[in-house]
Amino acid sequence: MVSSFEYNISTKVVFGKDTEKQTGSLVKAFGGTKVLVHYGSASAKKTGLLDRVLASLDELAIPYVLLGGVLPNPRLSKVYEGIELCKKEKVDFLLAVGGGSVIDSAKAIGYGLYHEGDVWDFYIKKREIRGCYPVAAVLTLSAAGSEMSDSSVITNEEGWLKRDAVSDSSRCKFSILNPELTYTLPEHQTMCGAVDIMMHTMERYFTAGDHMALTDELAEGVLRTVHQSAYRLKENALDYDARANVMWASSLSHNSLTGMGNESGGDWAPHMIEHEIGGMFDVAHGAGLAAVWEAWAQYVYKTDPARFARFGNKVFGLPLTDDAEMDALAAIAAMVNFFVDVRMPKNLRELGINPTKEEMAKMARQATNHDTKTIGSFQKLGQEDIVRILEFANR
Amino acid sequence: MVSSFEYNISTKVVFGKDTEKQTGSLVKAFGGTKVLVHYGSASAKKTGLLDRVLASLDELAIPYVLLGGVLPNPRLSKVYEGIELCKKEKVDFLLAVGGGSVIDSAKAIGYGLYHEGDVWDFYIKKREIRGCYPVAAVLTLSAAGSEMSDSSVITNEEGWLKRDAVSDSSRCKFSILNPELTYTLPEHQTMCGAVDIMMHTMERYFTAGDHMALTDELAEGVLRTVHQSAYRLKENALDYDARANVMWASSLSHNSLTGMGNESGGDWAPHMIEHEIGGMFDVAHGAGLAAVWEAWAQYVYKTDPARFARFGNKVFGLPLTDDAEMDALAAIAAMVNFFVDVRMPKNLRELGINPTKEEMAKMARQATNHDTKTIGSFQKLGQEDIVRILEFANR
Repeated sequence: MVSSFEYNISTKVVFGKDTEKQTGSLVKAFGGTKVLVHYGSASAKKTGLLDRVLASLDELAIPYVLLGGVLPNPRLSKVYEGIELCKKEKVDFLLAVGGGSVIDSAKAIGYGLYHEGDVWDFYIKKREIRGCYPVAAVLTLSAAGSEMSDSSVITNEEGWLKRDAVSDSSRCKFSILNPELTYTLPEHQTMCGAVDIMMHTMERYFTAGDHMALTDELAEGVLRTVHQSAYRLKENALDYDARANVMWASSLSHNSLTGMGNESGGDWAPHMIEHEIGGMFDVAHGAGLAAVWEAWAQYVYKTDPARFARFGNKVFGLPLTDDAEMDALAAIAAMVNFFVDVRMPKNLRELGINPTKEEMAKMARQATNHDTKTIGSFQKLGQEDIVRILEFANR
Repeated sequence: MVSSFEYNISTKVVFGKDTEKQTGSLVKAFGGTKVLVHYGSASAKKTGLLDRVLASLDELAIPYVLLGGVLPNPRLSKVYEGIELCKKEKVDFLLAVGGGSVIDSAKAIGYGLYHEGDVWDFYIKKREIRGCYPVAAVLTLSAAGSEMSDSSVITNEEGWLKRDAVSDSSRCKFSILNPELTYTLPEHQTMCGAVDIMMHTMERYFTAGDHMALTDELAEGVLRTVHQSAYRLKENALDYDARANVMWASSLSHNSLTGMGNESGGDWAPHMIEHEIGGMFDVAHGAGLAAVWEAWAQYVYKTDPARFARFGNKVFGLPLTDDAEMDALAAIAAMVNFFVDVRMPKNLRELGINPTKEEMAKMARQATNHDTKTIGSFQKLGQEDIVRILEFANR
């Protein structure tokens, strides 16, 4: 049966070429009077994007302070630094210029400004989130979907724990989506993004229980589009339409739309396992997901082979036979072929890591909080299951 | 090329069984302190829904006034009555309990309360909308999509003009979507709704210029789902999943999602022609759309037969041959077959009207403002074109 749900996406999306020039007027429309401009690497500076964004703020005489240096797998120490800076400078609006890492860091700063006490509490679920300072984004990377999502993922360097916090209050007030801003990305990053986007939909697609027919249709449409666009971008990194489709898919894939009405909220086991890997080895998130997916899929597909068979049929156009298990394996192979085609790692070795037995045990222990909880919904996985999946991925 | 767009859907959707019990707490969360409970026919009373909604307001001691009697093709006189009542009673929140007509009437009252002067000005585009009092909905009919849309359609009895007003400010603050509330609908109304929903997507699908690949996928998914669900509901009106899919499709079909990134905002010629028919003959909107669609499609398909061919292939699973014109005609026939299957009229005679030559000329004149503007984007239509389409539909 179709399950009850809430859908509450208040992010205003402004999509198209040159839309970053509207930054100032949008900040003003949403009530920002003193802005933190948060960004990552030197590339925002080098491409001139940061200058254009600042010019747009200057034009409306909106004061701001800058804080760069956000790393992939954004760090808690940078969040603390941002909170201190914003308090000192009386910032009331957080503008992320970058990808998911920068947006997630801005959301964490927003939580920190809204509440007293340690912001990490919200990531280890010690306290409940009651609100967030307003966050907005100028997106430079189609991947994480943070530009419309309710989630933020931060890595605590003490123990290298990568954890998420989820609240509608952190959804961006506006997100500026200019596909041209992704033209300069290296192919590897583009494809990490494509994998991440597909996985955000697949985590909601491979779940236990009933699925809403309309949601399945939307999910499969997103998956087909990203899959096809990735091949186009491999041929031509400056293909505007392919960039545009991937960017919009990034937002729709993780703004809840592709999971509405399904009985289980999502599986998220591949994400959880990747979070352990990302925390310990600091790999690119999309590549980490690709590297564990086959092992996860092979381990769990027998729970519901028909679901994998449908996935193969609808996303890759594979035929449906009367042998659902064989169809499921064909679907898994098609997904892995896609990873190979776009030069994504299909296992941990290709990801460039080789965790020891002890490290794998530690990751499984951390993911299950010392075997006190399971992860996943398509198939619930305990500590031992995760070790076996990691071993398979490490073959 | 993918076109620039804005997407700004702030409606909080609360979907599922018994969700109307949350009305009071949602009104409170969105700041309502004195509510107009706006509704249509006696059925809201008879089914007990109105009582449940009022009980939910009473529980939180939220005061309200009632205004029922909204008709299909909602009338301007009722809007004026609502504005007067709300001013007198100092209402600050408009709660529509009903379908699109009731929600549209509430939106019009919201415009009237926000601005001085005659609210009809906004429907004849004489003045620009600057805002709207907060509106919310408890939906009882899956059709118009007003529960997430930015539009409102009102009929002025003076001259029987049916006109729309469009503004993001009128989008519902929240919409309560309980599929069970549609169980008691007569089959005719259910199918009028299904047609209306499909047409909201098709108006955005059949447009001139480029289409965004991802948007095409989403649109086709919505169309397939409603098409299949309509057949299920013909078999069993109490099929919860079919009701749920149609209800969610109603919202997604008209909340802008199915048109994003397309070069033209939409065609809307069938809607415009139906508005003239609905204003003059007071027919059910969905039935009116079905009755003109074939004539419109036959008149325009040669502009881009491949688009119709794709529609037939993706929505009805028809084969694609090397003759796009024949494929297009097959697609049109498949849509008309669907109308026949769900007992919708396929022409004006079946709709139960038989306009005179003079009446058809008057409708065409009104739709084009005395031939000073065209309607449609897939193919631009002048006064003469509309007369010919009406004549075809009247065969």
